[in-house]
Amino acid sequence: MTEMTQHIASAFDRDLEGIQAKIMKMGGLVEAAIRDGAKSLDTRDEELAEQVRMGDKAIDLLEEQLNDEAARVIAIRAPTAIDLRVILSVMRMSANLERIGDLSKNMAKRTGVLAQLTPIQGSPAALRRMAREVELMLKDALDAYIQRDAELARDVIERDRDVDQMYNTLFREFLTFMLEDPRNITACMHLHFIAKNIERMGDHVTSIAEQVVFLVTGAKPGQPRPKGDMTSSDPRYSVDANSDED
Amino acid sequence: MTEMTQHIASAFDRDLEGIQAKIMKMGGLVEAAIRDGAKSLDTRDEELAEQVRMGDKAIDLLEEQLNDEAARVIAIRAPTAIDLRVILSVMRMSANLERIGDLSKNMAKRTGVLAQLTPIQGSPAALRRMAREVELMLKDALDAYIQRDAELARDVIERDRDVDQMYNTLFREFLTFMLEDPRNITACMHLHFIAKNIERMGDHVTSIAEQVVFLVTGAKPGQPRPKGDMTSSDPRYSVDANSDED
Repeated sequence: MTEMTQHIASAFDRDLEGIQAKIMKMGGLVEAAIRDGAKSLDTRDEELAEQVRMGDKAIDLLEEQLNDEAARVIAIRAPTAIDLRVILSVMRMSANLERIGDLSKNMAKRTGVLAQLTPIQGSPAALRRMAREVELMLKDALDAYIQRDAELARDVIERDRDVDQMYNTLFREFLTFMLEDPRNITACMHLHFIAKNIERMGDHVTSIAEQVVFLVTGAKPGQPRPKGDMTSSDPRYSVDANSDED
Repeated sequence: MTEMTQHIASAFDRDLEGIQAKIMKMGGLVEAAIRDGAKSLDTRDEELAEQVRMGDKAIDLLEEQLNDEAARVIAIRAPTAIDLRVILSVMRMSANLERIGDLSKNMAKRTGVLAQLTPIQGSPAALRRMAREVELMLKDALDAYIQRDAELARDVIERDRDVDQMYNTLFREFLTFMLEDPRNITACMHLHFIAKNIERMGDHVTSIAEQVVFLVTGAKPGQPRPKGDMTSSDPRYSVDANSDED
């Protein structure tokens, strides 16, 4: 390896370290947004909800910086095919993180409205447990990325089934509440939106984990990812609760 | 310009033409998926719905090819900053197209279930008009990309307001139907899902238009895009119908 290529290689590695540090920072903010968004709903804490909404700006800014930085690195370092794959996955991962942040913000947004509606016993706590599961999946997906751990990433992909199951259970509960008493309809429409958004956060985390598997093994997500979702086949479910974007 | 750089430049242009041809092909398939997905709902045509579901595989495959092709071009041509910007926007646009395709597939999926439920007068036709608007926005967004027409792209971004308004109107209708008669709840939950998905398709088309504006003018979408959505401020709306991902 000539001194020149050595110089270029190490310069690229320094750039990549900076980019990975930003991704981890972004990931930390998004984990907090999921946690606090769900907590604000459960505890009806409108101040915390406002923090989550404001905090989303920092997440959006990080994604923009990551894209600019990645484009700059590609332009000036002309990375090899494998290095390029890393940079491009980082760009995709940051797009997934940004969307999870938006969904958390949207969850927090509903805190105020829900506080004014008929309380639906137990549901906010159940949504918080579901969000907690997604938060842990995200933490593991990011650890899997840093450690290039395909096994951990595959484990995250599998765990999305549990999130889908939690969604299915909640969905049946909401429908029952609505049919029992029309006064529950509005609150249940909100809670169902939130459950669906958390289920979609899980899908975005799964995409991040699939990026890690692809990075490490070169294997693309051939089959559709495992779905624990029975609603399209099982007549007991009245609405097809399939992920909208799979 | 030396013969060598001339050679590289023209090779890049040929690559870019191939990539743009694929994007337009993908765009055409997605436009058809929106149109046929909405039509299958309105006419209860389960055969057409099945075609849309099957057709989504071709859209996903094109996105994968586009990403591979774009990565290959970046790796072997080491494009200049401006050429790189074009390639990276194409990758983002293809991700948006892929998601619109998924949402259309999801819309088509509900044709069978809806056919078994209490019909909600006029709603499938209204959803079809809403989908038609999004389809036209997409067509214009892709024309704006090929012609590098920032004005047309800005026009598309503005028109997303109308789609949001259509969503708000439908949302109020569905809530009224549900409150009037619990037997409408299940069908309205489906129809509301579909309306929300079409509204999200509009957001993805808006992202494509924003990519075009960025490409032509270098201007990033600073402010949040215009939202015709009144539901978070207007008490007449019982559910915050904000886009989940803005």
